[in-house]
Amino acid sequence: MAAEASRSLIDGVPGESVPVMDRGFSYGDGVFRTVRVDAGHPWLWSDHMNTLLRDCSRMGIPVDDGLPTTLRAELETLAGAASGVFKVVVTRGSGPRGDRPPTAPSPRRVTLFQPGDPTSSEAFPRSVRLCKVRMPSLPELAGVKHLNRLPQVLARAEWTGPLPHEGLLRDADDALICGTMSNVFIRIDQRLLTPRLDRCGVAGVVRGRLLDASLPTFARMGLEVSEARLGVTDLLAADEAWLTNAVITLWPIASLVDEDGRPLASWADAPGPAARSLFADLQALRETG
Amino acid sequence: MAAEASRSLIDGVPGESVPVMDRGFSYGDGVFRTVRVDAGHPWLWSDHMNTLLRDCSRMGIPVDDGLPTTLRAELETLAGAASGVFKVVVTRGSGPRGDRPPTAPSPRRVTLFQPGDPTSSEAFPRSVRLCKVRMPSLPELAGVKHLNRLPQVLARAEWTGPLPHEGLLRDADDALICGTMSNVFIRIDQRLLTPRLDRCGVAGVVRGRLLDASLPTFARMGLEVSEARLGVTDLLAADEAWLTNAVITLWPIASLVDEDGRPLASWADAPGPAARSLFADLQALRETG
Repeated sequence: MAAEASRSLIDGVPGESVPVMDRGFSYGDGVFRTVRVDAGHPWLWSDHMNTLLRDCSRMGIPVDDGLPTTLRAELETLAGAASGVFKVVVTRGSGPRGDRPPTAPSPRRVTLFQPGDPTSSEAFPRSVRLCKVRMPSLPELAGVKHLNRLPQVLARAEWTGPLPHEGLLRDADDALICGTMSNVFIRIDQRLLTPRLDRCGVAGVVRGRLLDASLPTFARMGLEVSEARLGVTDLLAADEAWLTNAVITLWPIASLVDEDGRPLASWADAPGPAARSLFADLQALRETG
Repeated sequence: MAAEASRSLIDGVPGESVPVMDRGFSYGDGVFRTVRVDAGHPWLWSDHMNTLLRDCSRMGIPVDDGLPTTLRAELETLAGAASGVFKVVVTRGSGPRGDRPPTAPSPRRVTLFQPGDPTSSEAFPRSVRLCKVRMPSLPELAGVKHLNRLPQVLARAEWTGPLPHEGLLRDADDALICGTMSNVFIRIDQRLLTPRLDRCGVAGVVRGRLLDASLPTFARMGLEVSEARLGVTDLLAADEAWLTNAVITLWPIASLVDEDGRPLASWADAPGPAARSLFADLQALRETG
């Protein structure tokens, strides 16, 4: 019986492990991307690559411009024509003990493919809770998807089981920031609003697509989108609300409970008109590239 | 020629790498300890082990009570009679993609030995700077030495070269918290003060030894020690100040510069009487066990 093909590459070489001296392991000193793959086709590839290069630059991890081409070839090697999730990690590479980054780092590239059909992308209504854990502020890396994920781990550990589907994090000043694995949008009349991520949070690629307002729904419904400092009261006042990420696409929020599971709000008609229409726009993007 | 003995063990087995699915690599979901070893003898071993077990418990990483015995045997295997630094990492182990911690994790243990004679422990005066980066608040893990080290990495990247010797971090409210790799103490008259670590920071073992006030210097000099919310003005008003960690022991602060390198204060008589005497107490601890 043939051995199963490796599902991960370390700097392009099949393998399942990284050196213990890798700074990703020692300090969380790296960034990552989670790309949805439909029958071998990565969704929002350019957005992911631009974001990856931006995040590496924000972290001071030197990568060359050919990285996206290399990653695309590795995706083909690992995924073939399968569907699933392609994860890319770029760390600052190995280094001696000590937080101080090497002056001339050799970044390490890890690619993984997890096959599966993410049916979770259907636009059916989701239940959401507020988390007790607050997102810590680190403005220098706000928006960057880096490997220091303990706030999200703690938040996701606040409840067990699949329900609610997601938890929302606020910062220490009660500003709404993000979900444990998603960004959040609310609609009030014609205004779409999403949390400003200047102190913390992860600026995802679907969030970026909605913020550039080029999807057909914006013109058709006359929507205006902006970043804002939002609180829970804004969410409670929303006509509709949803979560986004590059694997789930868009999840309409149907109900919200507080830290102790007490109901705070529900949206009986979720998905609302904007969520439904934007979900269709995003699905079309996936099919065309 | 015989191959050099491995300097690291993964769950007790010689090896230099960890699985890419380890949550330490993916999320920084683990804790660590850095133990000074003098001629095969680990310094403050019990303190380190108690702190490691406490930190695992704080993180919800289940480890058994026999862990210190196992680690002591691994230290002997790796270090023999050598001097150097023994690093222990305990992660939540491997898990599927997603921040959510496994309900029944199998923690992973990584031990490393770096030989060398840490001459840096001499009590000679050090230069220190204030860092621009602020320590993010995550009260749930305040004091825990976990693998989410990007704040310290960013802080240490603010300057290159060996000088100044260390940088101090404040939180978003200007409260003094810690050094990039050390804790900080100030003396004002007979009062020793160290930052309260209830919102962030790492509560080191030497800090713990000073806080319990059992060293001979406390009685001899009539010192009282406490945790406090401290600012830069408190540091400027100090009769003396120093840094501590388990490898460097105690570093007297001789000079302080601001974020732009401008002088803020200097202590011409560093090490002062308390630093000198406490350093001797700590050295004695090292020699006796």
